[in-house]
Amino acid sequence: MKLTILGCHSATPRWDSNPTAQVLEVRGHLFLIDCGEGTQVQLRRFKVKFSRLRHIFISHLHGDHFFGLVGLISTFRLLGREAELHIYGPKGIKDAILLQLKLGKSYTNYPLLFHELESTDPQVIFDDDKLTVTTIPLDHRVYTNGFLFREKIGERKLDVKAAGKARIDVSYYQKLKQGFDVENVEGKLIPNATVTQDPDPPKSYAYCSDTAYFPEIVSQISNVTSLYHEATFLDEHHHLAVKTKHSTAKEAGAIAKKAAVGQLILGHYSGRYGSLENFRKEASELFTNVVLAEDGKVFDL
Amino acid sequence: MKLTILGCHSATPRWDSNPTAQVLEVRGHLFLIDCGEGTQVQLRRFKVKFSRLRHIFISHLHGDHFFGLVGLISTFRLLGREAELHIYGPKGIKDAILLQLKLGKSYTNYPLLFHELESTDPQVIFDDDKLTVTTIPLDHRVYTNGFLFREKIGERKLDVKAAGKARIDVSYYQKLKQGFDVENVEGKLIPNATVTQDPDPPKSYAYCSDTAYFPEIVSQISNVTSLYHEATFLDEHHHLAVKTKHSTAKEAGAIAKKAAVGQLILGHYSGRYGSLENFRKEASELFTNVVLAEDGKVFDL
Repeated sequence: MKLTILGCHSATPRWDSNPTAQVLEVRGHLFLIDCGEGTQVQLRRFKVKFSRLRHIFISHLHGDHFFGLVGLISTFRLLGREAELHIYGPKGIKDAILLQLKLGKSYTNYPLLFHELESTDPQVIFDDDKLTVTTIPLDHRVYTNGFLFREKIGERKLDVKAAGKARIDVSYYQKLKQGFDVENVEGKLIPNATVTQDPDPPKSYAYCSDTAYFPEIVSQISNVTSLYHEATFLDEHHHLAVKTKHSTAKEAGAIAKKAAVGQLILGHYSGRYGSLENFRKEASELFTNVVLAEDGKVFDL
Repeated sequence: MKLTILGCHSATPRWDSNPTAQVLEVRGHLFLIDCGEGTQVQLRRFKVKFSRLRHIFISHLHGDHFFGLVGLISTFRLLGREAELHIYGPKGIKDAILLQLKLGKSYTNYPLLFHELESTDPQVIFDDDKLTVTTIPLDHRVYTNGFLFREKIGERKLDVKAAGKARIDVSYYQKLKQGFDVENVEGKLIPNATVTQDPDPPKSYAYCSDTAYFPEIVSQISNVTSLYHEATFLDEHHHLAVKTKHSTAKEAGAIAKKAAVGQLILGHYSGRYGSLENFRKEASELFTNVVLAEDGKVFDL
């Protein structure tokens, strides 16, 4: 899993800080999560091969998470895209995008498929043989979902040398990866464990933005490899976090601790603070493995 | 008149070239003309005091001229704007903006007033004691207007020294500026021309983007101080200009010549060309005073 932060600042885009968008690369998929204004420029700036995007997940319909979507969709059209594009987001997103395309007589030539969300319970919205994506209902001023990306257990790792030595025909290799014992060319049954190793443990990434402090999510995200949790404010502005239904860095740390996640990534910083280091410090008082999102940063999870 | 180019490239925003937006400062007004994605960042980058914007003119509803508008409107709200904001643009613009604000429960606190356009004849859409703004109907794939900004004749310039010498009371100075003869403190009639000078000749700016070659505009824009005319293509791609209803640099030069304008500013360049110098060269074959728009360039007209 590779996570590229395209933007991690709250509210409005500035020349040196971009609103929320990130790209998650996992098992051959390239997912875009949120799409604030200017995201297509960030995709180019950080050299993401964005023609590979097939699925875009939008948490909620505040501008700093979604005003870049229509531009990206239009650019795909100008670039001659043919592949399907799936958009997952709150009910209403389809009308907002299609109205703008219609006004410019700019309907896409490629299939643009909307999956509108309105459930307040977690829902599996993507599922294939490699991973699932599930919504994480959050608590914000408008209907908002986080997203939980969870790899499935992969195939067993074949020790090709050992399999050769055991005189197993290559046509059986796929069966070995699936965990079966197989016969070798002499008709002898070879125990699977002697020629394969356990697969890598599946990884998981939980994206939680925007949200008030909301411990209800803990059970769903417990033990994830990495948690991105918004931290718009520091504790000194806790009253603003309550008022605007955002979180403080301290609250993000508390969620990470309760959920016993592997790593906490902070982001969605308010523009009022000079240094971001205080966000890390504050969350670190409750949880040890805290890192700061920054525009352009790449995390290997 | 001061014109700041925020973006002058066609199609999609890139890290080094922005879609169309410009700011015209004239007689105390600050007007925004078009608003492609990322315009609010450009306003900050070039240090335009954009809280002073009261009137935004949108030529047409293609993304590279309008996808930045909703973000700018939202930012004004976040900044606590109270002043009225007037939006002039094609019918449909109001629905597109309000739907997005509604989905984010982000209606503005300040008065947001839409002036939707649908006439195919020139219309005066702004008029005060200092200037008028008139639409210039253009020929593009969707309903499109250029805009003609025309100063009114200003007050006469008072020669304060001469007026003092002629013993005119200061309470008459405003009347002098308006062109009246006045009596001095001794009751003697002082001819206006002896203590005032003609005002500066009024200036005018015509913005024409996007459009196919469309000589119908010539009579309306003749003799303007400065003409911004789109030049998406070079003559070698004339067939593409015809197909997409854009202009070549040569055609922009032809319009400037026919209209006998003071200066031609080219912009809206396609991204396919390396150097922009060929645009200038090509238009210069037909018209002498050609300059190239570039992001961040400021023209004192």
